[in-house]
Amino acid sequence: MTVRTLPYAGRAAGLVGSVIDSSTALLHRQTHDIVRFAMGSPAAEAVPAEILAGIAAVELSRPDAYDYAATEGDPPLHAALLESLRGTSDETTADRLTITAGGMQGLDLFCKIFVDPGDLVVVESPTYTNGSATALSYGAELLEVPVDVDGLDVDELERLVEATGRLPKAIYTIPTFQNPSGATLSLARRHRLLELARSWGSMVIDDDPYGLLRFEGAQLPTVRELGAGDPLVFAVRTFSKIVAPGLRVGWVDTDPELQPLLINAKQAMDTCTNLPAQRLLTRFLTGGHLDNHLATQRTEYKRRKVAMHEALTRSFGDIARWTDPEGGFFLWVTLENGVDTAALFEVALAEGVAFIPGPAFSPSGRFTDALRLCFASTKPDRIHEGITRLRRAVDLLAK
Amino acid sequence: MTVRTLPYAGRAAGLVGSVIDSSTALLHRQTHDIVRFAMGSPAAEAVPAEILAGIAAVELSRPDAYDYAATEGDPPLHAALLESLRGTSDETTADRLTITAGGMQGLDLFCKIFVDPGDLVVVESPTYTNGSATALSYGAELLEVPVDVDGLDVDELERLVEATGRLPKAIYTIPTFQNPSGATLSLARRHRLLELARSWGSMVIDDDPYGLLRFEGAQLPTVRELGAGDPLVFAVRTFSKIVAPGLRVGWVDTDPELQPLLINAKQAMDTCTNLPAQRLLTRFLTGGHLDNHLATQRTEYKRRKVAMHEALTRSFGDIARWTDPEGGFFLWVTLENGVDTAALFEVALAEGVAFIPGPAFSPSGRFTDALRLCFASTKPDRIHEGITRLRRAVDLLAK
Repeated sequence: MTVRTLPYAGRAAGLVGSVIDSSTALLHRQTHDIVRFAMGSPAAEAVPAEILAGIAAVELSRPDAYDYAATEGDPPLHAALLESLRGTSDETTADRLTITAGGMQGLDLFCKIFVDPGDLVVVESPTYTNGSATALSYGAELLEVPVDVDGLDVDELERLVEATGRLPKAIYTIPTFQNPSGATLSLARRHRLLELARSWGSMVIDDDPYGLLRFEGAQLPTVRELGAGDPLVFAVRTFSKIVAPGLRVGWVDTDPELQPLLINAKQAMDTCTNLPAQRLLTRFLTGGHLDNHLATQRTEYKRRKVAMHEALTRSFGDIARWTDPEGGFFLWVTLENGVDTAALFEVALAEGVAFIPGPAFSPSGRFTDALRLCFASTKPDRIHEGITRLRRAVDLLAK
Repeated sequence: MTVRTLPYAGRAAGLVGSVIDSSTALLHRQTHDIVRFAMGSPAAEAVPAEILAGIAAVELSRPDAYDYAATEGDPPLHAALLESLRGTSDETTADRLTITAGGMQGLDLFCKIFVDPGDLVVVESPTYTNGSATALSYGAELLEVPVDVDGLDVDELERLVEATGRLPKAIYTIPTFQNPSGATLSLARRHRLLELARSWGSMVIDDDPYGLLRFEGAQLPTVRELGAGDPLVFAVRTFSKIVAPGLRVGWVDTDPELQPLLINAKQAMDTCTNLPAQRLLTRFLTGGHLDNHLATQRTEYKRRKVAMHEALTRSFGDIARWTDPEGGFFLWVTLENGVDTAALFEVALAEGVAFIPGPAFSPSGRFTDALRLCFASTKPDRIHEGITRLRRAVDLLAK
C-alpha cells in the first residue's frame, strides 16, 4: 500500500499530535490530577450549558432541525448573526457571510480555493499550528515572520518577502490576542499590513477568534473593518472561544463574489455545518444571551490572567519572561535557563501540569525555549498550583 | 484579485449548485407547494426528533458536551458504535474507527491523504456528485465506469482501466442501493472488484450510507467485510440516512495504520466533529433506539418505493424506464422521448415538483435523458401527485 506522507504529518504536527493525544487522555481518560494549561478551550464553568440545554429542549424537538442545512448556513442564523454584529467592527451583510464548521474550516476553505502547490504563504512566527498545517496540506511554502509585543513585525514582513523575490499568495494573521503569543497587532501595523498586501496583490487571512474577549486596554478596529470592501481581505470568525468550541460553528466574511466558490468547496468537504448547533446558536443570539455571557467571561478571564501573572512572577521571576495580553486565552513564556520545552512536556505531565511546547507553533521548529499557557480554562487557585508544578518540572529537568 | 477557478466549480457542480440553491429556497423560503424528490434526506416524519430532544435536555446540560472532542471521535460514541455494529457486516475495532463530519468528510479525508494531482480515480457512472467533486478538487483525473442493474460493471472496469495503460489510485464505489441509480453490486462483482483492486494496488472506497435500509431481497456482505483486514479497503459510513443528516456525524473504518494520518488531516479541516451531536447519537445507540427506528424506516420506505413505482407505471409507462431498488432512497428514471432533463428541471419546478437531472451525476455530463428521484422523503399520496406533475412538465417541454 502506498500511503502518501502528508506534509503536516511531520515533526510539528507530530508534536501537536502527541500533545492532543495527551490532552485527550486528560479530558477523557483522566487517571490523575492535571492542571490543564494546554488546550485553548473556554472554562467548563464559562460554557452556557444550562441556557443551551433549555434551548435544545425546544428547538431540537423540531424534525427540521435535523435536515441538511443550506451550505452557506441556516438562514435564521445568518439573520441573528447579522443583527448581533450590527454596530461592531465586524458588521457585515448576508452576501458576505458563510457559516463554517468552526474557524478551522474557514482556513481550510481559504486554502482549498486559493493555495496552489508552491505558493508562498506568510505565517506569523509563532503561529496557530493547524492554520499553517492546512496551508502545507495544499502544498504552500511557508514564510515565517516574527511577532513581537505589537504583533506581526511589518518591517520584517516587508524585508523577508522582498528577500524571497516572490509575491505571497496570502498573509495569515491572528491580529488580536494572537494564538499563541497573546500579542495584539497595533493600529499602525494593521494599516501597514493592508498596504503591503495591496502592493503585492496578496490575500490577507484575518483570523480573529478572541477579539470579543478584550478585558483591558482600548478596542481596535478589526483588519476586516480597516480593509472594508477590499476583496483581498478574507475574515475568519468562530463561536468556539466566545460560546463553545464543541459546537463547531464559525463564519467567514468575504467578498460576495467568493460565496459561490465557498459553497462549492464546502459541499465537497462536509455538505453543510451541523444544523442542531446552528439552531442553538440562533436562539442564543436572538435571546440576547451573548452580551451578558461575554461580560462574564471578560471579567473572569482577566482575574485568571492576573493570577497567572502573579504565579509566574513568584515562581519564574528569575528564569523566564512572558507576555501580557489584554484579552483572549494565552500567555507566551520564554525560558532563559536553557531548558528545552519539548523535553519539559513529559516531565511536567508527570508533575501534573500540561502546556504546549513552543516548537509546535513554528513550521520550522523554532521556540525550543518557549511554551504556551492557556490561562482562560483554569480557576485562579489551580493556576497557582499549576505554575508551582511547572517550576518543579523545570527544576527537575535542569538537574 | 486572482481567484482560482476550482475544478469542481464547473458545469457539473454548477448544475448541482443550482439544484441545491433551489432546494434551499424550497426548504427555507417556500413560496409555493413543491413535491420534493430532489434532496436525499430522510423524511421529516422519519427523524426521531422527540427522542433526540429528550436526550438533548439531559446530555446537553453538561458543560463537557461543548468542549473540543477528541479528533478521532468522542470515546463514548466509539464504544456505543462498536457495540451497535457487533454481529453486523460492519463489525469492527476501535483502532479502525474515526468519527467524521458525515460520510462526505470521509471522502474528503481519503482524497486529502491519497490523491495527488494527476492520479487516476475510478468513479461509477452515474455517481455521487460531491464524491467525484472532492477527488477533482485534489487534482484527480476521473475514469467513469458504467453501472448496470448489478452495480458497477466490473468487466468494463477491467477493460477501461487497461485501455488507459495506467493503474488507478482508487476505485470509488457505492455498492448498495447506489446513489443515484439505486443499483446494488452483486456478490460475484464485489469479489471481482476486490480482486482487480488488489491486482492494481488500488484503494477501494466503500461508501455505503444506505446498506442498513434494505426493505426487500437478501442481505449481502459489505465490501468492507469481504475485504476484511485488507488495507486497500477504506470504508465510509454515516448516520445521515439512518438517523439524520443535519447531525453531520459519520465514520470511516480503515487500516489502523491510517488513523494517525486521519487525525492529522482532520485537525487541519475542522479540528473535531461537533460534540453535542456525538453525545446525542451515543445515547440514541445505547438507549437501543436504532433497531426500532430502522425497522420503522424500512417498512415506510418500501411503501414509498412501491407508490413511486405505481405512479411511474401509470404516468410514464409509455416514455420511460426506471430502476427497482431493494432499499435506500433513490430511483433512476431514463426518459425515452428525447427530453433533456436539465431543461426539464425548471419547467418541473414551475409545475411544483423537484428532482435532480442526470448530468449532475456524471463528471463528463452524461445522462442528459435521465433523472434521480428520491422516494424516501415523500408520503405515498404526495408521490402520486409529484409524478403526475412531472409528467405534465415533460409534456409541456415536449410540445
